[in-house]
Amino acid sequence: MPRTVRNILFIMFDQLRWDYLSCTGHPHLQTPHLDRLASKGLRFTNAYVQSPICGSSRMSFYTGRYVQSHGAQRNNFPLKVGELTLGDHLREVGMDAFLVGKTHMEADAKGLERLGIAPDSLIGARVSECGFDVVVRDDGLWTEGPDGAYDPRPSPYNEYLAAKGYNSRNGWTEHANAVTLEDGEITSGWFMKYIDRPANVAEEDSETPWLTSRAIDFLTEPGRDDHRWLCHLSYIKPHWPYVVPAPYNTMYGPGQVLPPVRSDDEKRDPHPVFDAYMQTLVARSFSRQEVREKAIPSYMGLIKQADDQMGRLFAELERAGRMEDTMIVVTSDHGDYLGDHWLGEKNFFHDCSVKIPLIIYDPRPEADFTRGQTCDALVEAIDLAATFIEAAGGEIPSHIVEGRTLNGLLHGKSSENWRNVVISEMDYSTTPIAERVGVTHRDARLFMAFDGRWKLVHAEGGMPPMFFDLQSDPEELIDLGRDPAYESERARLYEHLHAWARRLSQRTAISDRELDAMSGKFLRRGILLGLFDGSEVPQENLSTIPARPGNNV
Amino acid sequence: MPRTVRNILFIMFDQLRWDYLSCTGHPHLQTPHLDRLASKGLRFTNAYVQSPICGSSRMSFYTGRYVQSHGAQRNNFPLKVGELTLGDHLREVGMDAFLVGKTHMEADAKGLERLGIAPDSLIGARVSECGFDVVVRDDGLWTEGPDGAYDPRPSPYNEYLAAKGYNSRNGWTEHANAVTLEDGEITSGWFMKYIDRPANVAEEDSETPWLTSRAIDFLTEPGRDDHRWLCHLSYIKPHWPYVVPAPYNTMYGPGQVLPPVRSDDEKRDPHPVFDAYMQTLVARSFSRQEVREKAIPSYMGLIKQADDQMGRLFAELERAGRMEDTMIVVTSDHGDYLGDHWLGEKNFFHDCSVKIPLIIYDPRPEADFTRGQTCDALVEAIDLAATFIEAAGGEIPSHIVEGRTLNGLLHGKSSENWRNVVISEMDYSTTPIAERVGVTHRDARLFMAFDGRWKLVHAEGGMPPMFFDLQSDPEELIDLGRDPAYESERARLYEHLHAWARRLSQRTAISDRELDAMSGKFLRRGILLGLFDGSEVPQENLSTIPARPGNNV
Repeated sequence: MPRTVRNILFIMFDQLRWDYLSCTGHPHLQTPHLDRLASKGLRFTNAYVQSPICGSSRMSFYTGRYVQSHGAQRNNFPLKVGELTLGDHLREVGMDAFLVGKTHMEADAKGLERLGIAPDSLIGARVSECGFDVVVRDDGLWTEGPDGAYDPRPSPYNEYLAAKGYNSRNGWTEHANAVTLEDGEITSGWFMKYIDRPANVAEEDSETPWLTSRAIDFLTEPGRDDHRWLCHLSYIKPHWPYVVPAPYNTMYGPGQVLPPVRSDDEKRDPHPVFDAYMQTLVARSFSRQEVREKAIPSYMGLIKQADDQMGRLFAELERAGRMEDTMIVVTSDHGDYLGDHWLGEKNFFHDCSVKIPLIIYDPRPEADFTRGQTCDALVEAIDLAATFIEAAGGEIPSHIVEGRTLNGLLHGKSSENWRNVVISEMDYSTTPIAERVGVTHRDARLFMAFDGRWKLVHAEGGMPPMFFDLQSDPEELIDLGRDPAYESERARLYEHLHAWARRLSQRTAISDRELDAMSGKFLRRGILLGLFDGSEVPQENLSTIPARPGNNV
Repeated sequence: MPRTVRNILFIMFDQLRWDYLSCTGHPHLQTPHLDRLASKGLRFTNAYVQSPICGSSRMSFYTGRYVQSHGAQRNNFPLKVGELTLGDHLREVGMDAFLVGKTHMEADAKGLERLGIAPDSLIGARVSECGFDVVVRDDGLWTEGPDGAYDPRPSPYNEYLAAKGYNSRNGWTEHANAVTLEDGEITSGWFMKYIDRPANVAEEDSETPWLTSRAIDFLTEPGRDDHRWLCHLSYIKPHWPYVVPAPYNTMYGPGQVLPPVRSDDEKRDPHPVFDAYMQTLVARSFSRQEVREKAIPSYMGLIKQADDQMGRLFAELERAGRMEDTMIVVTSDHGDYLGDHWLGEKNFFHDCSVKIPLIIYDPRPEADFTRGQTCDALVEAIDLAATFIEAAGGEIPSHIVEGRTLNGLLHGKSSENWRNVVISEMDYSTTPIAERVGVTHRDARLFMAFDGRWKLVHAEGGMPPMFFDLQSDPEELIDLGRDPAYESERARLYEHLHAWARRLSQRTAISDRELDAMSGKFLRRGILLGLFDGSEVPQENLSTIPARPGNNV
């Protein structure tokens, strides 16, 4: 059993595509700090999220459970009281769990009330924050509309901007996510026409550096080393609005925008759900080259800024000696279509949306075997919870956590007997897509099963599936979902999906170990079923009941 | 919308076969009191439990959810904190929920502790008792062995016997479930050789009359009518040990024992799980005619006694005027093989195990259309929770309760658009069966899908299914699970099973109504995704952001 890690720094970016780092092959972006972490750790090339949307994906990361298991199917659907999280598991082995940044957690207020748990009690607060102790919670969506704010919490980022002298009621909207036009006028960063312009905020006050500073404050707080910790440092960027301050707004231009991965064939007789996604405003926008040429350089600038902030953070970790005892993970909650497949945003299952970058730096000597290498095993987001619990010295609660530990792969063990299919899910019930497709809310659900070559997308509601062969069609341009030639391959992927759907996911109140201890024990607790005269069982088992002498012969 | 019922009397017997009442066709048993209830209510002829084992079946009755959804897979597996129950739902509409008898509930002690809920607080006690306020809790299994008691609680029934002067430490073992031999000696009722002999207890002090008296005490308690109530009157009998006091022990004999439903063909190349069940001690016992000739008359005596107690109870209800305002339900948690198919006990999916008697008397005038009739719609145990909530005046929380209301059927509505398949499950992980079959605990699970004609039994762990055609083979003697001629019928049942397995079962913290209210609302909360220049959305939606005059043209 390898030694344990002392701390875990679990860094998540939001909407960072797997292929927008230099170490994952982007031809124009240079991300030397993340590359350097990859050179000291292991980079996973086939890591997938459990749902390509912020909230549901994160609830899977934090619980180690599939979306169908935890039930927080979509953004702003509460994670129900009773679901256990990383924080619960880690505290059991003496590791604290802190949050610096975003979770997209929606508390189960009704559940708390029903169980008489005060939301501001220690237990209530942790349940409300999906198991974390909050250093700072900032989901990074401080936007407002005529019906009010998307996120009704007080905004620590807006408070920071106000304290720094930014003169606005909502600095996120008016400064950090607005741009300065040539004439000095400002306008919202929602208008992509202008997002080649610099954000209306000093670079050091923009969201990524601000959160990095909060993380450094956390790391350097006196007494921080008194207890072991996991710190979830969770950035909003490069998530939209795609606005970046100078000088990052000018680092990339239309010349660095890769051509979209799409084909006209995709629009001929498309799958009904894919078709409905293609009709959304964001998809139509990102299908326009002028939008891509504004948004993508800005998106790249945000990533470059993020990488620079990683440099700042990693320097601090080295200075403090934390590279010796701290596991560092960098990942994302999903990707971004950026116009590929005629789509914007995420929410669907092409690799640019559902696949994520994943770098794990493990300080333990056992990981020396894999430093700087890549691993192509099929990894799921839920594996991190299992990995963290085990690395912290705990036993993975396999009756609760559905992910698999990556520690073996980190330490150079073979990936034989590894999983052979990854599953991802999407609930589009509260979107206009459901109405366009004409399905009930309950049927507005998609499942992906991918075995490393074949990708099946099943849609509830009586529709055919989508199906891709990533070996012959790595860009996922040819939907074989209705091609009779692939019937048997589709059936094979459906078998995987259905074995998964039948899985045991809710027997979480009794562990595998406790179950072992129960097995076959009831005879010795007096359940003497099936006896005719007592001769069938050892005499000792009859010692507690009135037995006629001679029954047991 | 029909008027609501004032009270609900939810009577459950344990291990009562669907076909062991005179109204369901038993040729020798006379159960006039239950028959009379059926003549005033509606009798369901195709009602199935969610799992043919006490604890899991009951947790489905009480939560209205499938076993795979609530996770209490097997007896003594805790129902996790957070699962909502009948009591939770009914109290919301002003109806109390009381328990008189058995639930087989195992509290989630770790879950309570983790959430800081004291087990003896009102909330903690209800969570621990699966939502009921306990009048008396008696699971009726007060047996002990060399490793201690099966049920470690204090036994109210043993306290009663002691107070009545029975001189024993454990009256359940030494009196109620022991028999008096001819020479006056007593021996345990576990020995089936002697269970034609009378129980060593006065009839009025045996378990069924004792619990009926507790129910009558409940009904007649001063102030009982001040609040609306559901009373779950839940008997242990005719569950084993098959011991009955005089005069019921002599009412039936070998001449009234029906021949076993079984064939030698069932033993030729049987399904591995069926085979393992056939090898259990209880199965081997019940395969012997001498065991059947002892146990079945006693089982019938227990049912006859139960029916007489129903007469006593119903008379009390009539006297108190409760037939006017109280819905009365009589059912069972599963059946009993009694030697059919070479098996004893339950735990498997032949109708004698998984199908239950179900009589519902609805006092409302709308139910006059169906009085005395039968209904052959495919009913699941989880339907009762939905039925009760609606009959009490509540809205069925369809995001939590997976059952369907029976009120429409009770009121003569057509069963068109009714479900076309029932699902049942079995987890045999803690039994010796798992070892015999050679599957892991996690794979020790079975699923049944039955569409009214075809019955599929799927076994995890790479085994073939079992498959029966109840039209050509109503006794379920011919397993077609490996017959190539039935491939397409099996595939059709598998489709049903898998559509069920993919169902949405854990999105319980947000209601369908709340979800409707969220749909498509984020644009008006400032999520302005996909704008190029603002011309894409109504001007009003831009009112809260800095917008350059003229963006929106």
